[in-house]
Amino acid sequence: MELDLVPGGLVRAIEELPLVDHHVHGATSHDLSRTAFEEMISESDRPVPEWMTRFDSQLGYAILRHCAPVLGLDPHCTPEEYLARRARLGAEEVNRRLLAGSGVGHFLVETGYRSDEILGPSGMAEASGVPADEVVRLEAVAEQVAASGCAAEAFAGRFAETLWERTRTARALKTVAAYRHGLDFDPERPTGEEVAQAAGRWFGSGGGRLDDPVLLRHLIWTGIERGLPLQFHVGLGDPDLDLRRADPLLLRELIELAEPTGVPLLLLHCYPYQRQAGYLAQAYPTVHFDVGLGVNYSGARSAALVAESLEVAPFAKVLFSSDAWGPAELHHLGAELWRRAMARVLGAFVAEGEWSQARAIRVVTMVGVENARRVYGLGEGA
Amino acid sequence: MELDLVPGGLVRAIEELPLVDHHVHGATSHDLSRTAFEEMISESDRPVPEWMTRFDSQLGYAILRHCAPVLGLDPHCTPEEYLARRARLGAEEVNRRLLAGSGVGHFLVETGYRSDEILGPSGMAEASGVPADEVVRLEAVAEQVAASGCAAEAFAGRFAETLWERTRTARALKTVAAYRHGLDFDPERPTGEEVAQAAGRWFGSGGGRLDDPVLLRHLIWTGIERGLPLQFHVGLGDPDLDLRRADPLLLRELIELAEPTGVPLLLLHCYPYQRQAGYLAQAYPTVHFDVGLGVNYSGARSAALVAESLEVAPFAKVLFSSDAWGPAELHHLGAELWRRAMARVLGAFVAEGEWSQARAIRVVTMVGVENARRVYGLGEGA
Amino acid sequence: MELDLVPGGLVRAIEELPLVDHHVHGATSHDLSRTAFEEMISESDRPVPEWMTRFDSQLGYAILRHCAPVLGLDPHCTPEEYLARRARLGAEEVNRRLLAGSGVGHFLVETGYRSDEILGPSGMAEASGVPADEVVRLEAVAEQVAASGCAAEAFAGRFAETLWERTRTARALKTVAAYRHGLDFDPERPTGEEVAQAAGRWFGSGGGRLDDPVLLRHLIWTGIERGLPLQFHVGLGDPDLDLRRADPLLLRELIELAEPTGVPLLLLHCYPYQRQAGYLAQAYPTVHFDVGLGVNYSGARSAALVAESLEVAPFAKVLFSSDAWGPAELHHLGAELWRRAMARVLGAFVAEGEWSQARAIRVVTMVGVENARRVYGLGEGA
Repeated sequence: MELDLVPGGLVRAIEELPLVDHHVHGATSHDLSRTAFEEMISESDRPVPEWMTRFDSQLGYAILRHCAPVLGLDPHCTPEEYLARRARLGAEEVNRRLLAGSGVGHFLVETGYRSDEILGPSGMAEASGVPADEVVRLEAVAEQVAASGCAAEAFAGRFAETLWERTRTARALKTVAAYRHGLDFDPERPTGEEVAQAAGRWFGSGGGRLDDPVLLRHLIWTGIERGLPLQFHVGLGDPDLDLRRADPLLLRELIELAEPTGVPLLLLHCYPYQRQAGYLAQAYPTVHFDVGLGVNYSGARSAALVAESLEVAPFAKVLFSSDAWGPAELHHLGAELWRRAMARVLGAFVAEGEWSQARAIRVVTMVGVENARRVYGLGEGA
Repeated sequence: MELDLVPGGLVRAIEELPLVDHHVHGATSHDLSRTAFEEMISESDRPVPEWMTRFDSQLGYAILRHCAPVLGLDPHCTPEEYLARRARLGAEEVNRRLLAGSGVGHFLVETGYRSDEILGPSGMAEASGVPADEVVRLEAVAEQVAASGCAAEAFAGRFAETLWERTRTARALKTVAAYRHGLDFDPERPTGEEVAQAAGRWFGSGGGRLDDPVLLRHLIWTGIERGLPLQFHVGLGDPDLDLRRADPLLLRELIELAEPTGVPLLLLHCYPYQRQAGYLAQAYPTVHFDVGLGVNYSGARSAALVAESLEVAPFAKVLFSSDAWGPAELHHLGAELWRRAMARVLGAFVAEGEWSQARAIRVVTMVGVENARRVYGLGEGA
Repeated sequence: MELDLVPGGLVRAIEELPLVDHHVHGATSHDLSRTAFEEMISESDRPVPEWMTRFDSQLGYAILRHCAPVLGLDPHCTPEEYLARRARLGAEEVNRRLLAGSGVGHFLVETGYRSDEILGPSGMAEASGVPADEVVRLEAVAEQVAASGCAAEAFAGRFAETLWERTRTARALKTVAAYRHGLDFDPERPTGEEVAQAAGRWFGSGGGRLDDPVLLRHLIWTGIERGLPLQFHVGLGDPDLDLRRADPLLLRELIELAEPTGVPLLLLHCYPYQRQAGYLAQAYPTVHFDVGLGVNYSGARSAALVAESLEVAPFAKVLFSSDAWGPAELHHLGAELWRRAMARVLGAFVAEGEWSQARAIRVVTMVGVENARRVYGLGEGA
C-alpha cells in the first residue's frame, strides 16, 4: 500500500525504532570501481555479462531510489551519476552517511567471511556511532585451528578451547553448513573417534575450506554446548549453495535433538522458504527466523516477503537483519526497506480493520528491537 | 482490499451462504484456563515459553478482533479481559454464541482425535443448531480393532467389518498418514500376507499408535474400497509431522492408482503447498482441496492463502473448512476469516474489472457450499 | 491495482510494445466442439467430469472477459454464447482476430507437440501478420530418427546430423526431459558407448516415445553443442509430469557444467517454482526464465505470479511467453494478461514511490521485447 495511507502513529513509531540488525557483516572502507560495486550487489560470484548491468534489478533500483538522496542526489539519477558522486565523497563519508542514516541502533557483526576486506565490529561502531558486537562463524574458527597446525586427535579439544576463547564477548555463533554441505546432514552428534578420523582426512588433504559433514556437525554441536544463540544460513545465497539443500525443514531433527538445551536457533534469510521457517517457529520454542538478504534483493517487492514471514509464526520469533556485506548501501537499505515493508504490511492490517494500531506498533517493536534484545541478552542500553 | 470497497451484492451473498465446514472437529465443552487456552491456539505441543504469549500471533489478534465482540467486548480488549469474560459466560454460552454466529450451515465432524475432550457430532449439532455429520478417521478405527484384541491374520477382515459398521451414517473418511509416516509411502495396495505380517509386528509390539506404512496403506486402500470421499491431512500440523513429507505432490502415484474408482480425494489444509494442491486439482478429476487451518493461523494474512488457492484449480474442486478443534473461537474464525478473505480476493477481481460480480458470487457459492454438497451428497436441505 | 490508477505513460508504453512470444505453439485451424474446446483449456488430459465445466476457472473467466469482446460479444456472455459465436465466425476469422489483436510482434513457435493438429510457423505468420520462427524440440527430432530406421551405433551421428539439418533456420531448441524423466537426471554427458547401448534398448523395445534418461541427456548435450539457446520445460504441465521432479533447482549441476559454453538456458513456465527460477537467474549468467502458461491458467491472479518473477532475478534475465497451444484464445490471453499484470505490478511500484516511471518502462521493454531479441538474435526488424 502507499505509505501516505499508513496511519501516522505507526509510521512515526517505526521511524523511531532503534533497530537491532542481528546478522550483518562489515561495510567496506575501500573506494569501489563500477565493476567492484556491481560484483557486490549480487549473490552471483560470476562476472557481469557485458550485455547487462546489475543496476537493472530490484536492488539496483532501490539503491538509486533510497541511497542517492542520502548522497545528495536525485533518486532519478543514473548509475553513472551515482557512482561518480560516491567516488567523490569517498568511502568513509559514504559509510558515515549511509550507516548513521540507517536507523540501526545496534549491529551484530558476523566476522567470518572475507573479513580482511571490510570493517570489523569496532570499525562498524565507529562509522555508525552505535554499538556493534560480534557473531563468530564456527567454520572460520575451525579453519584457523587447522591452519595453526594441530594433530587430528587434538582437534576437538583445540576447537572447543579456541571457540570459548574467541567468543568471550561474542553475542552469537553462526554456521554456514548450508554452503559447505547442505542442511541434509545427519543431525546426531558425532563421536570423538569419528571427529578425529574426519579431522585426519581434512588435515591430510591440506586443510583449507572445511566441508566434511562429520566436522560440520561437530562444530554445530560444540556450538550448542557453548550455549550462545546459534545462527544458520538458510535459503538463498551465492551459487556455491544448492538451494534445494538449504530448505529449513531439513533442520527438523537437529532442532528436536537440540531442543532440551534451550539454545535459541536463528534461521537467517530463508528466501524462498520463509513460510517453512515460520512453520518451524510456530512448532518449536527455540526456533526464530528472519527474511534479511531477501528484503534487499527484492527491493520494491520486499513487502511481499515480509508479509509471508508474518503468517503462522508467533511474533516473538521473528527478527530483523540486513545480512549486508560490503557497500554500506546494503546496510542502509536492509533497514530502510524493512521499515517501509513493515509499514505497508502492518498498515494494511490496520486500514483493513483487522489489527488495531497499538497491536501493529507492538509487533514492529518486537520484530525490530525487542526479540533480538531478549535472544542476545542485549539489555535496553546495550 | 478494504471490505468497504467490495461490491455490496457480493458481500451480502457471502454473508448469506450456509457454509459447509467439510472438515472440523468438536468444540470443547470445558471452561479453559489461560494455559489451556493458549495451548489450543497453536499447532505446537510444546509449553509456551515464559517470555511470550500465543496471543501475540495472527490467530491471537484475530480472536480478539473478531470473537471479542461476539462475547460483548471491545475488539481492542486485552487477552486478560477476553479470557475473564469467556470464563464468566461459561463454555456452553461461549460455544452457543460462537458456533451459532459462525454462519456455518452444516458441519462434517472428524471424531478421531482426542474425541473424549470435545463435542461429538450430536453435541455440535445441539450447540450450533445446524446439522452435523461424522467423518471417520481410519487410523482410529484400526487402533480400536487392535485394542479389542485380534489375531494378525484376522486383522484385515476385522478392520473392514468394523469400518463398514462405524461408517454406516458417516459422510467421509480421513487419514493421517502424513503424521504417522509421511505421504512418501509406497502407493500400491499391500497383499493380504504383507498386511497380516505387519499386523503381527504391530500387535507384538503392544499395538497402540499405528505408524507402520504397510498398515497405513492398507487402511487407505480399504477406505477407497469403502467408497466414501477420503480426506488426507496435507501440509502444516503439529511438530509430530515432517512438513517436507506432507507435500501433496507425494500423493501423485496413489491418486493415479485410485483414479479408476472415482472416489473423491480431499487434500486438507495444504499450507504452504496450496499451489501444489491446486495443480493436482487441475490435473486429476478426483482431487479436491482446501486451505483450512492455514486460514485461522494466518489471520490478517489469510486472504493471501485463499488467493493462492484460486489460481490454477477449477473452482469445482476447492472447498471450505476450518479444521477447528477445541475452542469454539476456531470454528467461528475459520468461517469468518474465510468469508472476509473471499470477499477481499473476489472483490478485487471485480473491482479490477477482471470478473463480473455474478461470477464472483457463483464461485464463492461453489467453494463455500455447493462443492461440498456434491462431494458428500448432502442435498440442499441436509 | 486497478488499471485506471496505473500511470498513463506506462500503460501506453506497454500497449505499444511489439512483444516477442519466445515460446508458443501453433493455433488450431479447426472449428472446435464444446468438448474439444474445454479439453484444450486445461493441462489435464482427463475427460471433463459431467458435474463441472472448465469455464469455471481463472482461464475460463479470462476467456469470456477478454476474448468475448474481440469476437464482438459482451464480456458477461455465457460459455454457450461464446462458443456459438466462435463457431459462427469460423476458426480462420477467430484466429485472425485473436492473433492480430494480441499485440505480439514476433512468435517463436515450438513445433514438437501434436504439430499436425495446429498451424506451423508459416501458418502462424500468415494468420497473425507478423514474423514467426521455429523452436525445434530435441525429443521430436530423435524420435523421427528412430522412426526412420537407424542402427544403435549410428544413432548419435544420425541425430546430430538431423538436428543440424532441422535447425538451419531455427531460433532455439527445446527439451521436455521434465516430462520424459524428470529434471533429476545425471547431468554429465553420457559416453558414446552408453548412448549406443541406450539406443539399442530403445530401438529393441520398438522406439516410440523417448524416455530413457541416458538418451535424454545425450540430446541435451548435443543441443548445447549445437549452440542455439536451449529451452527447458519446467514446472506445471499435464499429469504426465511429476511436478516434484520439475523443480528448476534440479538443473543446478547441468547449468554449471554447461556454463562454459555460454549457451543461454531458458526455463519455461516454472509455476509454482518461479522464485526458485529467479534465484538461478541471479546466480548464473546463462539462466533466463519466464512465467508463461501459469499466467494464462491463473487469470485474474496472474499479477501475483508476474510479481514473484520480478524479485531476485536481474531484469535482463526475465522473458515473456504464452506457451499457447491450440485455441487462439490462449495466444491472445498470454499477451493480454501479461500486459495487464506488468501494468499492475510495475504501476504499483511507481505509485508507491519505489520506481520512477522511466524505470518501469525500461523493465517492461526488456522483459517483453529486448531480452528475447538479444537471446535469440532477432534484431530490431526481425
